[in-house]
Order: sequence, then structure tokens, then C-alpha cells
Amino acid sequence: MEDKFLFAQQLIREAGQFIKKKMTEQVAITIKSQNDDLVTNVDQETQEFMIAKILQQYPEDHILAEEDEVRHPINDGNVWVIDPIDGTVNFVVQKNQFAVMVAYFEDGVGQFGCIYDVMNDLLLSGGVNLKVTLNQQEVAPYQSKPLDRALIGCNSGLFLTNEFGVTHLISHTLGVRVYGGAGISMLKVMTQELMAYFSHIQPWDYAAAMIIGKQLGYLVRTFDGQEPDFKTRQKVMFLPECELKHFENYLSE
Amino acid sequence: MEDKFLFAQQLIREAGQFIKKKMTEQVAITIKSQNDDLVTNVDQETQEFMIAKILQQYPEDHILAEEDEVRHPINDGNVWVIDPIDGTVNFVVQKNQFAVMVAYFEDGVGQFGCIYDVMNDLLLSGGVNLKVTLNQQEVAPYQSKPLDRALIGCNSGLFLTNEFGVTHLISHTLGVRVYGGAGISMLKVMTQELMAYFSHIQPWDYAAAMIIGKQLGYLVRTFDGQEPDFKTRQKVMFLPECELKHFENYLSE
Repeated sequence: MEDKFLFAQQLIREAGQFIKKKMTEQVAITIKSQNDDLVTNVDQETQEFMIAKILQQYPEDHILAEEDEVRHPINDGNVWVIDPIDGTVNFVVQKNQFAVMVAYFEDGVGQFGCIYDVMNDLLLSGGVNLKVTLNQQEVAPYQSKPLDRALIGCNSGLFLTNEFGVTHLISHTLGVRVYGGAGISMLKVMTQELMAYFSHIQPWDYAAAMIIGKQLGYLVRTFDGQEPDFKTRQKVMFLPECELKHFENYLSE
Repeated sequence: MEDKFLFAQQLIREAGQFIKKKMTEQVAITIKSQNDDLVTNVDQETQEFMIAKILQQYPEDHILAEEDEVRHPINDGNVWVIDPIDGTVNFVVQKNQFAVMVAYFEDGVGQFGCIYDVMNDLLLSGGVNLKVTLNQQEVAPYQSKPLDRALIGCNSGLFLTNEFGVTHLISHTLGVRVYGGAGISMLKVMTQELMAYFSHIQPWDYAAAMIIGKQLGYLVRTFDGQEPDFKTRQKVMFLPECELKHFENYLSE
């Protein structure tokens, strides 16, 4: 497993280099489901680049990825979950604040994950029996602190509508931060810059954070308290396990 | 003026070093007006450090600063406007995403400003007849683009209540970003990562951006279209001058 983990860390850094090079060229933008759901040729080409590298090294493995309907079921065999560019709007507008993510599962059991904030060159990675590091530095597990000394990351739509009571919860903290990407937001949860993150996201958005976070005391739950399904877009929270009961005092169904 | 500008740039980098050193020590936090309005000993000590340096070099000059009620009127003589730590909540919780700001006025006329994102080591500075640079690189003036390809920075409270129609405006863009600091948000406007910024802020929060931004095509206006008063906390927008009419189609009084 250690070799595969090292391979993934190298792969994600190479994907970051690939994206940076592509950024110097003209980027073609396509609207997917709605105005703020964008995809670019760079998302698609980065995904192809990553899949080719994985299948060259591990030809028996399978892929579940964001673009082009590559959807192997998470429970079946060795599955790599790939998000080539998480935070595509930030990528397009800001040329900053986006991430590449990779997670690796065996028969549905998460083994390791990597989140790479490309422009800030921050690689968070870790897994089962694999130390969690941020650019080689070991990352500390979650340390409990009072809610009124915390910041919460949130999708702006959920915040605006107080869905599930998130805005009510946030009103008991130091405030909300909206960064526009699950990867960079969940990375900030694990470095304890945010206490938790609420959003409406897809399997490739939460897969890596779920595995890395588990090693540090965090979990991903749907708003009704279930494990996410790895099939559909769901409203989820990423938070410290030990704060779950406390959060539930403020959240509603 | 060029010497004074160089002095200010050096001062703000020294202030950044001062803060970084203080961050390795215990930080004492005090609540000001409300739970999320914090001040630390580092804010106060950094302000004292900066004022001492300025008055040592320019003993005839005056100071308008955030902490400890240092409030020389902006229109009277040579006035330095100082925000020792903008984004104190981020400073306390995230140890990141905060800025030091300095602006210099003569008889009410802005001469130059500096915004320093300490942890990312990004210094934006410029002024009248003084090139606008980000870490020595010249910064381009605003280039118009469609609203539906833009991101807007906003204070979370204004966004939540759709004050002045900002949420309505934002619904016609690619979305909102909430970073928790005027300095880092306005810096992102001037690097065109955001198109505009809306917030409820104080003179030391907008002074530097107003001067630097003027050189690049941006302005600060209150929600009712006035110049800010440099006396009170006001709801303001920082936006490209050429987009003002366009924005007004979406904003309400």
C-alpha cells in the first residue's frame, strides 16, 4: 500500500504541474448543468492524464471520476476516485484556490487520499496506517475548542437558506467563510483553520477528505446523519466526530 | 514622496515580521463591541510599533489608527492611516488570511497605500504617480468582463440580508466569496480575482485600497453613492468605476 500511496502523491503533483502548464494556454470553458457549473478542457485533459498514468501502473484497477461519466462502483475492487480540478469556477476566474483530489478504495474501504492545493503548493495526504502530512509535516489530530472560537466553511446557497439550520449554527460561531471549493475548504478543516464544512457535493468532492479526515478525528455525514452514498450529489457536513452531538443541538432536520 | 513611499513599504514588511514573531508567543484576546469583534495584544503592539517608527522618521506627521482611539482628522495635514491587523478573527483562528494596511494622506488627499498579506507574503502598493505593484510586479488596471463571469467578495451579514440588493446582484454572477477581511478581499479585487467587494467597514479598512485602487480604475462608494466619510463605520462597495452604472441596475437603495 505504501508504494501505491507514494505513486498517488507523485501523480497528484504531476497533475498540478500539468494544470499549471495548461493555464498558460487558452482555456475553453463549457457550462454544464447551470451557469456556475463549469468545466474546461483542462479538467478533462487532466483527468485523462491521471487515468492514463494510473492504468499504466495498475491495469487491473478501476476509476470513479468527475468528468465524462467515468463511474465504477465504489464497492467493487480497487477503485481510484479522481477530481481533476475541484473549484473550477475559482480556477477559471481566480486562477487560484482550486485543488486536485485522489482517493483510493479497496472493496469500498478507503485506503488513502490526497488533496493538492495547486497554486499554494500544499499537499495534504494520509490514510489507513499512513501518516497524515501537509508537505511532509505531520498534521495533528483535531483538538476540541469552543464553538464561539470557531469558523465554519459553507456553501453560499446552504448559508443563504439556513438549510438544516447551518446558518443558526454559524450564528453561534465567529462566522462563515465561503471559499468556493470543497477541496480547499476541507483541507482548511483538517489544518483547523475551519471547524467544519457544509456543502452540497459529489463523491469525488468528499472521498479524499473522508479517508484522510478519519485518521484525524473527522467524519463525513449527510444532513440526515448517514454515511454518504458515493453515487449522488448530497448535502453533507465534514466535521470533528467529537463535536457531532454538540452540533446537533443547533442543527435541524 | 517616493522616499516616504519606500519608507511605508519597508515599515509594513517590518510590521509583518513583528506579527509573525508575536504569533510564536501566547496571544491575549479581548472582545470589543461584540463576540466576533476581537482585538489582541498583537494588534495593539503592532500599532504602537508602527506609530513609533513613523513619528521617529516624520515627527510632524499625524496618525489615524484602528486601536486605542488614535483619530487625527483625515483633512488636517500629513496623516498616516494604519490598520495593524485587518482580519483579526482570521489572525486568531486561522493564523492566516490577515493583512497590515497603511495609507498616507496630505490635507485629505490620498497619496499612497500599502496592503500586506502577511502569511502569503504579498505586498500590494501604489499611489499618485507611484506605480502599483504586487511584490515588485506591476499590476494591470481593471479590464471589463461580463458580470456572469465574475465573483463578488462580500461581508456575510450583508449577503444574508440582501442589503442594498447585493445578494440579488451576486445571483447574476458566478457567486460570492467570504474571506473575513477587507484587506485580503480588496487586494483580490485589484488582482481581479474578485470583481468587487461589499462590506460594513471603517476608514482604516478602506483607506489604502481607495488610493491604490484609484490608480487602477476602482473606487470606494457608500451604498448611497457618496465618498466615504473617514469618520464612521459605513456600508461601502469597492468596485471598478466603469462597472458602477451596470451594478446600479441590480442594486437598490
